Amino acid sequence: MANEVKLYAVAGSPFVCRAKIALNMKGIKYENFEEDMSNRSAELLKYNPVYKKVPVLVHNGNSISESLLIVEYIDEVWKGVPILPRDPYEKAVARFWAKFIDDKCIPAIFKAFGPDGNEQTDAEAIEQLQILENELKVKGTKFFGGENINLVDIAADFIAYWLGIIQEAAEKTLVTNDKFPKITVWADDFVNLELVNQVLPPREHLLAFFKKRFGKA
Amino acid sequence: MANEVKLYAVAGSPFVCRAKIALNMKGIKYENFEEDMSNRSAELLKYNPVYKKVPVLVHNGNSISESLLIVEYIDEVWKGVPILPRDPYEKAVARFWAKFIDDKCIPAIFKAFGPDGNEQTDAEAIEQLQILENELKVKGTKFFGGENINLVDIAADFIAYWLGIIQEAAEKTLVTNDKFPKITVWADDFVNLELVNQVLPPREHLLAFFKKRFGKA
Repeated sequence: MANEVKLYAVAGSPFVCRAKIALNMKGIKYENFEEDMSNRSAELLKYNPVYKKVPVLVHNGNSISESLLIVEYIDEVWKGVPILPRDPYEKAVARFWAKFIDDKCIPAIFKAFGPDGNEQTDAEAIEQLQILENELKVKGTKFFGGENINLVDIAADFIAYWLGIIQEAAEKTLVTNDKFPKITVWADDFVNLELVNQVLPPREHLLAFFKKRFGKA
Repeated sequence: MANEVKLYAVAGSPFVCRAKIALNMKGIKYENFEEDMSNRSAELLKYNPVYKKVPVLVHNGNSISESLLIVEYIDEVWKGVPILPRDPYEKAVARFWAKFIDDKCIPAIFKAFGPDGNEQTDAEAIEQLQILENELKVKGTKFFGGENINLVDIAADFIAYWLGIIQEAAEKTLVTNDKFPKITVWADDFVNLELVNQVLPPREHLLAFFKKRFGKA
């Protein structure tokens, strides 16, 4: 059976980019189907009927939804560069931080930059990011994964790339080099990796999009 | 090295019971440390500094938090009865439904039975449960895992056991046998499994607890 890999995607999404980075790490060729989220394709509705969201990976007709689960699937099916540690404990730790990013960090940042953002929501976002900053400090490695990226770095792509652009567009800065020296250096290192850089949406497109959203265009 | 397994727990928690069911399935002996959540132990704060919540599994000194990650860890470390499917696609599907239960079903049920519960929140909870009902119907098997329970059944322990007790305590019924015939039969089958039954907290304790909470004591 041919190895047919399709990705239902939206170029500007950090969740989609997680899947693309994982596919890139394994050197997998895939067909990208760009979705219009205001007019979703029949395929997307068929493949992800519960959430109707991207990314969806379709591998030989089997559809997988939820970006972190897609990354785990890619790691399990395709050998080569590991994305999750092989040791069960190290794997649980990586999953813990990836889940923390999804459950705590990203929602707190969305709130801080949302219509009801205020000093309190800013403080809450900073509190969650401080936990990540400390984790990088304690580890003392280049990436959350060590000398190479793993599931946690991929999960944090929003923090590495989108957050800085959102801060510029909103004219509000939560993550400064002073307060978050580890995250700042990590974000640069992560974004500068060729396999990451190749799949990130152009900065100027995102900046224009968020400026418009924040009424700063 | 001795296989030292400790569980930091609260008897009434469905999240703790997930870990206990998984330990039971693998036949693992462990030491249970009952926590007082109004006065958490130094060990719990040390082992789960981010969330300070139970369950925490400590295996030979390594601590793992987050109930579904604990279940995955147990399945990876101890052989015997599988808790997740071995096939990567089937595994992704199981993880999808377990995540759906945590992200959608349980929050919707908490909201419906919370202080701001109303017709709208009831309808939202029913909508999510209907998706699970349909999944059981489409599968046509005894459990989400097939003829045996898997990660999804374990994740749904709250729906199988706690929800009925909460409905009785609150004097409000969302899940009726009529509207949810599959969930009703599944819940009975699940709760009647000896390895599940052994770890569930006594019904009368939970009922008294929730009656008090709902002001029906």
